[in-house]
Amino acid sequence: MFSKYKWVCSLAIFLCLMSNWITGGEGNEGGNMVKNLRVNPERLYERIMALSKIGETPDGGVNRVAYSEEDMQGRQFIISLMRKLGLSITIDEAANIIGTLKGRDPSRPPILFGSHIDTVPNSGKYDGALGVLGALECIEVLVENNVVPDHTLQVVVFTDEEGGLAGSRAMVGELDAPALKVVSQSGKTIREGIKALGGNPDNLVNAVKKKGDFKAFIELHIEQGSILVSKNVQIGIVQGIVGINRWDVFIEGAANHAGTTPMNMRRDALLAAAHLIIEINRLVRGTPGNQVATVGKISAHPGAVNVIPGSVLMSLEIRDLSSKKIQWIFNWIEKKASEIAQKTETQITFKAIDVTALPAPTYPGIRKVISEVAEELGLTSLSMPSGAGHDAQEMARITRIGMIFIPSVGGISHSPKEYSRKSDIVNGVNVLLHTILKIDSGALHR
Amino acid sequence: MFSKYKWVCSLAIFLCLMSNWITGGEGNEGGNMVKNLRVNPERLYERIMALSKIGETPDGGVNRVAYSEEDMQGRQFIISLMRKLGLSITIDEAANIIGTLKGRDPSRPPILFGSHIDTVPNSGKYDGALGVLGALECIEVLVENNVVPDHTLQVVVFTDEEGGLAGSRAMVGELDAPALKVVSQSGKTIREGIKALGGNPDNLVNAVKKKGDFKAFIELHIEQGSILVSKNVQIGIVQGIVGINRWDVFIEGAANHAGTTPMNMRRDALLAAAHLIIEINRLVRGTPGNQVATVGKISAHPGAVNVIPGSVLMSLEIRDLSSKKIQWIFNWIEKKASEIAQKTETQITFKAIDVTALPAPTYPGIRKVISEVAEELGLTSLSMPSGAGHDAQEMARITRIGMIFIPSVGGISHSPKEYSRKSDIVNGVNVLLHTILKIDSGALHR
Repeated sequence: MFSKYKWVCSLAIFLCLMSNWITGGEGNEGGNMVKNLRVNPERLYERIMALSKIGETPDGGVNRVAYSEEDMQGRQFIISLMRKLGLSITIDEAANIIGTLKGRDPSRPPILFGSHIDTVPNSGKYDGALGVLGALECIEVLVENNVVPDHTLQVVVFTDEEGGLAGSRAMVGELDAPALKVVSQSGKTIREGIKALGGNPDNLVNAVKKKGDFKAFIELHIEQGSILVSKNVQIGIVQGIVGINRWDVFIEGAANHAGTTPMNMRRDALLAAAHLIIEINRLVRGTPGNQVATVGKISAHPGAVNVIPGSVLMSLEIRDLSSKKIQWIFNWIEKKASEIAQKTETQITFKAIDVTALPAPTYPGIRKVISEVAEELGLTSLSMPSGAGHDAQEMARITRIGMIFIPSVGGISHSPKEYSRKSDIVNGVNVLLHTILKIDSGALHR
Repeated sequence: MFSKYKWVCSLAIFLCLMSNWITGGEGNEGGNMVKNLRVNPERLYERIMALSKIGETPDGGVNRVAYSEEDMQGRQFIISLMRKLGLSITIDEAANIIGTLKGRDPSRPPILFGSHIDTVPNSGKYDGALGVLGALECIEVLVENNVVPDHTLQVVVFTDEEGGLAGSRAMVGELDAPALKVVSQSGKTIREGIKALGGNPDNLVNAVKKKGDFKAFIELHIEQGSILVSKNVQIGIVQGIVGINRWDVFIEGAANHAGTTPMNMRRDALLAAAHLIIEINRLVRGTPGNQVATVGKISAHPGAVNVIPGSVLMSLEIRDLSSKKIQWIFNWIEKKASEIAQKTETQITFKAIDVTALPAPTYPGIRKVISEVAEELGLTSLSMPSGAGHDAQEMARITRIGMIFIPSVGGISHSPKEYSRKSDIVNGVNVLLHTILKIDSGALHR
């Protein structure tokens, strides 16, 4: 009896493995069955809505700042899903959640994909949530269709993306002691926050991955701008994540009585600032390319209605995919500023405050795969920079990265009004699914 | 023995009175003795320096804000001087100090002159102090030369000029209940302050003067600008105190991500503000006249280095001697603003916040007297507006006003660096002295 049972069992396991192999084989060889895999729109959409209930605000927004109670609940929601999908779950020392689906060949490095579920205060439903739930939907489609990839697949939920990419920086060995002391939106320091999420901030070195540890990292995200929407394109193929340079701009004139100082005897720092703001805009708009420059902060001193501004402090930020171009634009702005300073009898000085991010180009081979996938799925696509920062930019230090964008209606992000259409969401996750599958099948080695 | 003594005494008194009458008579008829009267430069200058010790700051400035301990000490200094000069002293219900030198003809209304001794925080030595100590110097010159004017002369020290002309507003019946509740720089409310100085804020009506109560009001002041200095002119004949209109300017664009929003898809409120600031300056400089317009305050919201400003709030102030011209300029600015709003896809609205002051023209007859006096003293003079507010503008509601300006080196005022040359100070007080004497002799009735 025992032996007969054993035989039946063995046969069942053999058939099971065979079926799996055949299906998987078809997938890896681009068979029709795998080619026809599509995500489940209802399931995906319902999960996005379900996650958005955690930290929901009265105006339909989401408040789920990193390390908050809501963040912890959101993470539990994701962990439950991963468990249901049979993934093995790791919380690394930086509290990144990694769900692993074992691949056929353990010698191959895993393909990593995912995003984050934390939000800025009073944000929207989509942002990072899409990249995480989209990744899990991809896994679910594979699991329910018994597709076993060659590579191990890992879905990552990075810790505290919005507060400064804490999780991905830790993973590439860039989250240092001073960063751990920063007080996050939750009120906790990053160190306290990581601890609260189950990480071990004293031993971050164990979370560090090195070159070769991953095959690639793919992140699906909403555009957070209006390029795709305005051009009516379905998929954005990210060329790279722009570099960001920032300066404090000081303009020194002379504060004086607004009643007794004739117009031609003024050294009005705010007038000089106005000229500079216009010149910055004129230059950056007039130069071919996707560079952007922004003056977001300004203060005039002493700042009284009846005193001519004696000094102005304002911010300048320039973003582009090329560090060289950022420098070229800045040099030109500095030149213009000195002309303005002379004309307005002021002094204008620039102080670089930090290089928040170097440009992080995506891997050309992955861009090609995304483009092919979009075409095969009958979707329109275009190449575009990511003007916003993402965990992918940190991951670029140790692996090939790719990013897929979908349209944000009205270009609105980090707001309760943030919205992506269901059809665009489904398209994006289908592109993610087939990008992963193509990379799994060796598309980067053609 | 007693009778002989009595006779000698009577003779002495008679001679004394005769001498006084003859001198006074000469003065009133423009006799040489009176024409040659000049202030005592050393005495005047020493008193200005002495008063500046009360509230002196380490950097040579003066902190004597209204109602403070220093203000009280400064007032005691003035009262002692008045007492020494034999003036009868009144503290009215608004705590204005009035020192009276009786004139020959009690039926004639007094000629009022003076200024204030309170300062803004960390201010300079000259400002109002010059007008008060200059007035007392004029009295001293008359007293020591036994000149008795036809009109009673009154030297006034107005309460809290810098905080909003409290004393002069009370004198013309314009200091109302809400104004008394305002908290002054001293920390006291105006009501508490007036009480602390010996006034009676509950009975201000008794301090109110009406039309006809004064012959005229004359105020000597530093220019607080650089018109006289830059043109190398010694005496400013004030045409009037400018009217001031103020607006809050709201600019509404769209806050958006500074990385993901292309330059041509932005509705940058700060860019619109920059265009408006430049247009305001261009218009006001390009229009003939002495009008001034100032944007002194600005804030951009949300005010983050990485967010395109969604809205801007800034101040606009226009000053001119003519209310009509202020309105004309404002209308033009509003028109330009609507063009800018269209071009930048923003909305620009103006909200008048208050009419701080209507223009207060000086009395033409007094301007003529000042001009003649300057010429007779061999001093250069020019007509100019007062861009700053003064107690004279309130006094204009009930009497003829005149203002005499002297140069401020570098045009600096309300600062420890405020400085007027001794020679200019002496010139100014001599002009004040002879302006009073000419008015006393009937110059306004020619």
